[in-house]
Amino acid sequence: MNGAQSLIRTLVGAGVEVCFANPGTSEMHFVAALDSVPEMRAVLGLFEGVVTGAADGYGRIAGRPAATLLHLGPGLGNGLANLHNARRAHTPVVNVVGDHATYHKQYDAPLESDIEAVAGSLEGWVRRSARAAEVGADAADAVAAARAHPGRVATLILPADVSWGDGGVAVGPVPPPAPTAVSQTTVKAIAEILRSGEPAALLAGGPAGREAGLRALSRIAAATGAKPLIETFPARLERGAGLPAIERLAYLAEQATQQLDGVAHVILAGAKAPVSFFAYPGKPSVLAPEGAQVHTLAELDHDVVGALESLADEVAAGTEPQLAPPRRPARPSGPLTAQNWVDVIGAMLPEGAIVSDEANTSGWLLPAATAGAPRHDLLTLTGGAIGQCLPLATGAAVAAPDRPVIALESDGSALYTIAALWTQAREQLNVTTVLLNNRAYAILRLELQRVGAQSSGPRANELLDLSRPDLDFVKIAEGMGVPAARATTAEELADQFRRALAEPGPHLIDAAV
Amino acid sequence: MNGAQSLIRTLVGAGVEVCFANPGTSEMHFVAALDSVPEMRAVLGLFEGVVTGAADGYGRIAGRPAATLLHLGPGLGNGLANLHNARRAHTPVVNVVGDHATYHKQYDAPLESDIEAVAGSLEGWVRRSARAAEVGADAADAVAAARAHPGRVATLILPADVSWGDGGVAVGPVPPPAPTAVSQTTVKAIAEILRSGEPAALLAGGPAGREAGLRALSRIAAATGAKPLIETFPARLERGAGLPAIERLAYLAEQATQQLDGVAHVILAGAKAPVSFFAYPGKPSVLAPEGAQVHTLAELDHDVVGALESLADEVAAGTEPQLAPPRRPARPSGPLTAQNWVDVIGAMLPEGAIVSDEANTSGWLLPAATAGAPRHDLLTLTGGAIGQCLPLATGAAVAAPDRPVIALESDGSALYTIAALWTQAREQLNVTTVLLNNRAYAILRLELQRVGAQSSGPRANELLDLSRPDLDFVKIAEGMGVPAARATTAEELADQFRRALAEPGPHLIDAAV
Repeated sequence: MNGAQSLIRTLVGAGVEVCFANPGTSEMHFVAALDSVPEMRAVLGLFEGVVTGAADGYGRIAGRPAATLLHLGPGLGNGLANLHNARRAHTPVVNVVGDHATYHKQYDAPLESDIEAVAGSLEGWVRRSARAAEVGADAADAVAAARAHPGRVATLILPADVSWGDGGVAVGPVPPPAPTAVSQTTVKAIAEILRSGEPAALLAGGPAGREAGLRALSRIAAATGAKPLIETFPARLERGAGLPAIERLAYLAEQATQQLDGVAHVILAGAKAPVSFFAYPGKPSVLAPEGAQVHTLAELDHDVVGALESLADEVAAGTEPQLAPPRRPARPSGPLTAQNWVDVIGAMLPEGAIVSDEANTSGWLLPAATAGAPRHDLLTLTGGAIGQCLPLATGAAVAAPDRPVIALESDGSALYTIAALWTQAREQLNVTTVLLNNRAYAILRLELQRVGAQSSGPRANELLDLSRPDLDFVKIAEGMGVPAARATTAEELADQFRRALAEPGPHLIDAAV
Repeated sequence: MNGAQSLIRTLVGAGVEVCFANPGTSEMHFVAALDSVPEMRAVLGLFEGVVTGAADGYGRIAGRPAATLLHLGPGLGNGLANLHNARRAHTPVVNVVGDHATYHKQYDAPLESDIEAVAGSLEGWVRRSARAAEVGADAADAVAAARAHPGRVATLILPADVSWGDGGVAVGPVPPPAPTAVSQTTVKAIAEILRSGEPAALLAGGPAGREAGLRALSRIAAATGAKPLIETFPARLERGAGLPAIERLAYLAEQATQQLDGVAHVILAGAKAPVSFFAYPGKPSVLAPEGAQVHTLAELDHDVVGALESLADEVAAGTEPQLAPPRRPARPSGPLTAQNWVDVIGAMLPEGAIVSDEANTSGWLLPAATAGAPRHDLLTLTGGAIGQCLPLATGAAVAAPDRPVIALESDGSALYTIAALWTQAREQLNVTTVLLNNRAYAILRLELQRVGAQSSGPRANELLDLSRPDLDFVKIAEGMGVPAARATTAEELADQFRRALAEPGPHLIDAAV
């Protein structure tokens, strides 16, 4: 068994059964080894940002890591933005980054670069395999590191001769450490604050976005009057009829400040103290009111859901969570706008959908329109690096082939990782992309005002305009093998959305808003 | 004057007059400042790999840096692969990477990441501006660092509050250090070796690829019998009728070993000692014959061309260079193949063309077919990070609007930075892309054999196949506003190539080979 074969066998043994790959020469023995380990499914991406974003989407839905296969430092670089999002989502991901043979590195060949420096910026786990006999154990450690609560990006650097060398040993899975339980002392202290009668907000993140956490949050809120909030960009938020509908802290600092207005205590459960996404001249970074105290029930590496349930048992025994009733908006008609398209989605969202949301400015009305839709998972832009949506949807669809995946993408974000459409077509994934096309970096038009840039004139505005030439996403999608259509009215969007959901495989709707 | 204004004024004063930009919120004051400094031309890219590759292409042709404008760490990450190529090309590039406001960094907001670590991997120059009053001086230093012979990537990190802060001071240009001259002692020692009569190869790189260096190389070779070679992947090689036609060291180690067969001395001028691009099991990394001595006439940071001219004066006084005669291949006919398409280009290449070459396996016959074509510049894949071709052509066309730019791209490399086509359309750049479409990662099929991967079966081969579904680059290009056509015969390619050159603005030809 060579190093590559031992690596893949070890990954499969540890539950890593999908590898999103964009290989090069130094990865050819890994590629060849795929034929000897049929339990590993390899999914080809034609750009590394697709590969890493798909691994993120897969991990968020499957709850266990996919592997990536990347080609030296530049391949890792191309995948870095979506790994940044995965880092912020705390998604378990195992990167395998091929490198030159150990003895070849000294020659500084053209593709040589500092892989450790780039991988290290992800603040996860990084190791370079030194010998074929050790790569199995390295891989087992990588998976354990990736899976250690709350999840992280692990990067294993695989020199070509370690991959092709003989003496590989497949290693059994290494159990990841369990999350630390929060002490009853902490739970009781927080309970005391909630019982004080002083206005409080309870800001939850990470695994609290799943049903058990949401139910505990809702119970606590109902019993104590504390305001429950979910972090602005959750990795995975369960929503819809039959689940507690808990609002997210707003992206716009102006709105978030209002949500927290009058609060004397901010209690954190797997979330960070609320700060604005960017700084703005003359505005505070911290969003909680001045003088408000911030308390931590659970850090993200604690058992966040367990802590919330303990707190609920303490302050809300006998109180039931408040669940969203089934409710869909009326189906709109007439020209498609940034306001009415969300009602089409809200009216038609299928049961069990996974929604990958990068609609940005076009999507601000989406939460209200889908709050009473059938139960669904919402995946958001955790790290702020746009170009996440299409790859994330791709990976989610690989993880959950029986669920409809809806990608809500915007024109300003689409081209970063547009090649994801090809992978969707190749794998015949059930992804319906609604591409909100407003022919602008609309969010930057807003931000240009928000940052108080006074002197902006035609040359600045030119940089935020995508209408010269217009992007025709129908042609782009068809060029990558994805059937596509354009919608200019709400009726057309509804009609095309219905057809896309009814047919297997990917579809794209270029929605002019 | 705020920091951003002083930065842009300083850049313009130092000869940096183009900024390839993909801005976000933290860059909004830079964007706004563009209206107050009309001498700076901003060119929008819809993905950072387009922006950085365009800056590389611009720098290679203009001989001075363009700026890039990138959005925090993820933006730099997306641009990293083409910055890696720029680093290997020794292209002067000035990155401006926006970051959170200085006081906002402590909050670890979603887009926070270790920008210095990623920028540092480029082994160039990195600085973080601390105050608005200093950003002008920082920018002047950045340009000087980028321009210091032989050229490098300089990265200036610009916190948002440094950008919007008052008190900016525009600073005059800082002269970059001149290259070190090679001593006459070294020149004479190398001359001695060349006169010894022992077989020698003279491997030149960097600025030796321009006319003066090539003429000196050719004179030395003609007078001494030494074999002249150009490095495998030159940043910019002047070629064609009237210039010395000096062959490049081959990419395939098997061929390169043949080129160097029997050589007792390898003399380096601005090039590294020849090593294989990748390591292969059981094959040496070093390409020179065992026992051959390697001597250095000039390191890359020396005055390489001056050293070659001194050496030519020493050993080849009175010897003229051997110049390629005008000679074009016959125009082929019939179905288009990987063999005959190069003759179409050779037969029709216009005077003064700039050729951005990423044709990979499809392009191995190109050098012979174009050796006697009218004079042109060839830009190659210096760092091995594919996805360079289209952005490089974009930047080259911005630098030389009056010259025809020919991008020779392959399907396996095209999707990394396909958004470059949109920028070409927006700026109406005279770029003709010939997209060699063989529906495969053909080079990897070859490499899979070359690395001796024995067990490769259907699952491995599946990862190298791009035909399911076929990519339709006509639709993709049209979707981005670039007129496009498909060629399946040599006659169609010739016809479409002629029309593309005759019409202003970009065109794409999807060439089925």
